[in-house]
Amino acid sequence: MGQRRWAVGVDFGATNIKCGLVDRRGRVVTSLVLSTRQFGRPAAFVEGIRRAVEQLAASAGLSTARLAGIGIGVPGLVDAQHGIVHMLVNVPGWRQVPLAHRLRARVHRPIFVDNDVNLVTLGEWRCGAGRGARALVGLTLGTGVGGGLVLDGSLYRGVAGAAGELGHMVLDPHGPRCACGARGCLEAHVGTAAIVRMARQAGVAHRGRLTPERLAWMARRGNRSARAVWHQVGRLLGRGLASIVNLLNPDRVVIGGGVANAWTLFAPSLRRTIRAATMGVPGRSVRVVRAQLGDRAGIIGAAVLVWNETGGTE
Amino acid sequence: MGQRRWAVGVDFGATNIKCGLVDRRGRVVTSLVLSTRQFGRPAAFVEGIRRAVEQLAASAGLSTARLAGIGIGVPGLVDAQHGIVHMLVNVPGWRQVPLAHRLRARVHRPIFVDNDVNLVTLGEWRCGAGRGARALVGLTLGTGVGGGLVLDGSLYRGVAGAAGELGHMVLDPHGPRCACGARGCLEAHVGTAAIVRMARQAGVAHRGRLTPERLAWMARRGNRSARAVWHQVGRLLGRGLASIVNLLNPDRVVIGGGVANAWTLFAPSLRRTIRAATMGVPGRSVRVVRAQLGDRAGIIGAAVLVWNETGGTE
Repeated sequence: MGQRRWAVGVDFGATNIKCGLVDRRGRVVTSLVLSTRQFGRPAAFVEGIRRAVEQLAASAGLSTARLAGIGIGVPGLVDAQHGIVHMLVNVPGWRQVPLAHRLRARVHRPIFVDNDVNLVTLGEWRCGAGRGARALVGLTLGTGVGGGLVLDGSLYRGVAGAAGELGHMVLDPHGPRCACGARGCLEAHVGTAAIVRMARQAGVAHRGRLTPERLAWMARRGNRSARAVWHQVGRLLGRGLASIVNLLNPDRVVIGGGVANAWTLFAPSLRRTIRAATMGVPGRSVRVVRAQLGDRAGIIGAAVLVWNETGGTE
Repeated sequence: MGQRRWAVGVDFGATNIKCGLVDRRGRVVTSLVLSTRQFGRPAAFVEGIRRAVEQLAASAGLSTARLAGIGIGVPGLVDAQHGIVHMLVNVPGWRQVPLAHRLRARVHRPIFVDNDVNLVTLGEWRCGAGRGARALVGLTLGTGVGGGLVLDGSLYRGVAGAAGELGHMVLDPHGPRCACGARGCLEAHVGTAAIVRMARQAGVAHRGRLTPERLAWMARRGNRSARAVWHQVGRLLGRGLASIVNLLNPDRVVIGGGVANAWTLFAPSLRRTIRAATMGVPGRSVRVVRAQLGDRAGIIGAAVLVWNETGGTE
């Protein structure tokens, strides 16, 4: 097994299913994309992945028997030990699906399944901005705010596979209402909807639909209100992370997801806030950095899971 | 080594240093107490512990060579791997003291040192209210609010030994000022000083010094304002714990420390708040219970550390 140089990583998103042939260093050699609309249901997914795996292997002149395995990151709750998908968020048809079992019967290679944000964190830890960290907090900023934890050198999943819900840590009990029903969650403060709302409240003038990308573009062009919004995003994020840093005393925090493209706009106030709001020792132990793997993080992390579970990378 | 049935546990507090001879089931066979005022400095401590160990062993008719080792919980920051005390809170004279090394030279048995709240958590996990838990959050309520974590079956210390600072998670950025300088920490909401302040604000009438014990006594006698204060303590604690439960998805939360004597007064609102304020899966995974080991938790936890590090309990 140690001799198999390739794995397939699958990143199951609400819009696309990205698949890639990945080597042991986390390099994506070839990749392909399936539409979730067409391949999102369990039966179609299994069939789509089977074909994708064959195509990816063939593109590198390999038989599928040469693959170390297939890793799959899904947007929902998973029993990683048995490869069972309990349920997915925003993708219908997935309730207690024994995905590893069904796919193994078609592909005849080891199959591993985990939560997508867990795998992004695992990927950054092995091949990205988290390399060498002993305790890593991964944070993904987008429509939702998610997280993953690598503690004492392994992925920490919690007792029901639900650990890492950083997005629903309450920053301020009087803060804005969150999609989860509570008030003042981190997601309600720095999710994309919250950022756009802050921009409107700050009087950022804009024609058409305002998005975080657009707001970052305006800030870079010198718009003061837009810049102030990003400073505020950094402060809010820093406040949430400070509590986590005090609790877990990690040596690295890695921040990814679409909104992290505005990194240079919010990182200074984020770092300043964390420094000011943590206890001495945990505050000095931690480095806060931007994720490195970009939109391939999901594929790479899923492949890393394969090597993690079958023994060793590189 | 597996044959040695006894260990000595030491609980180094700001007032007393408690020492106990503990068997593998966590039963304290004999114990003795030294005054921190007299034995708190490093040299006096080492000498005091040496004598205490001999006395405890002799009381059970043992030579010290029959001890599996000595475990020591200290109120401060520790390099547990090397047995070095970086610094203690409220006890002068401790800066980078190689305690394990110095004590081993006098006692000639294995010595293990860790943070006191970590060891209380470890003790509850092996011998108390945390038995069987896979992921345990321990919370200690008193003048300060501290915490410890047992994750995936081992004590989680963080990269600099500072993990578990539950007391400085921020509940409300507009909340009361904390001793640490920040605003609205959990400790500033439910530490003893905060509870007394809430009671005064709630108009709890009382002659003499008001303490949490006194407030609990009044609540049990039917004083409505006093009861309302304890409900509020449960709600505040529940809010803090909800974020931690979402983050770590533990199966057990164990609450100890002096203020936990009021358990029946605040547990109902605590449990209700956690249920309401957590995501579905983490909320359903967790049980919140009262610590069982009482004021012997520190001694027992320190002894458990010895067996943990030298191999197996029971």
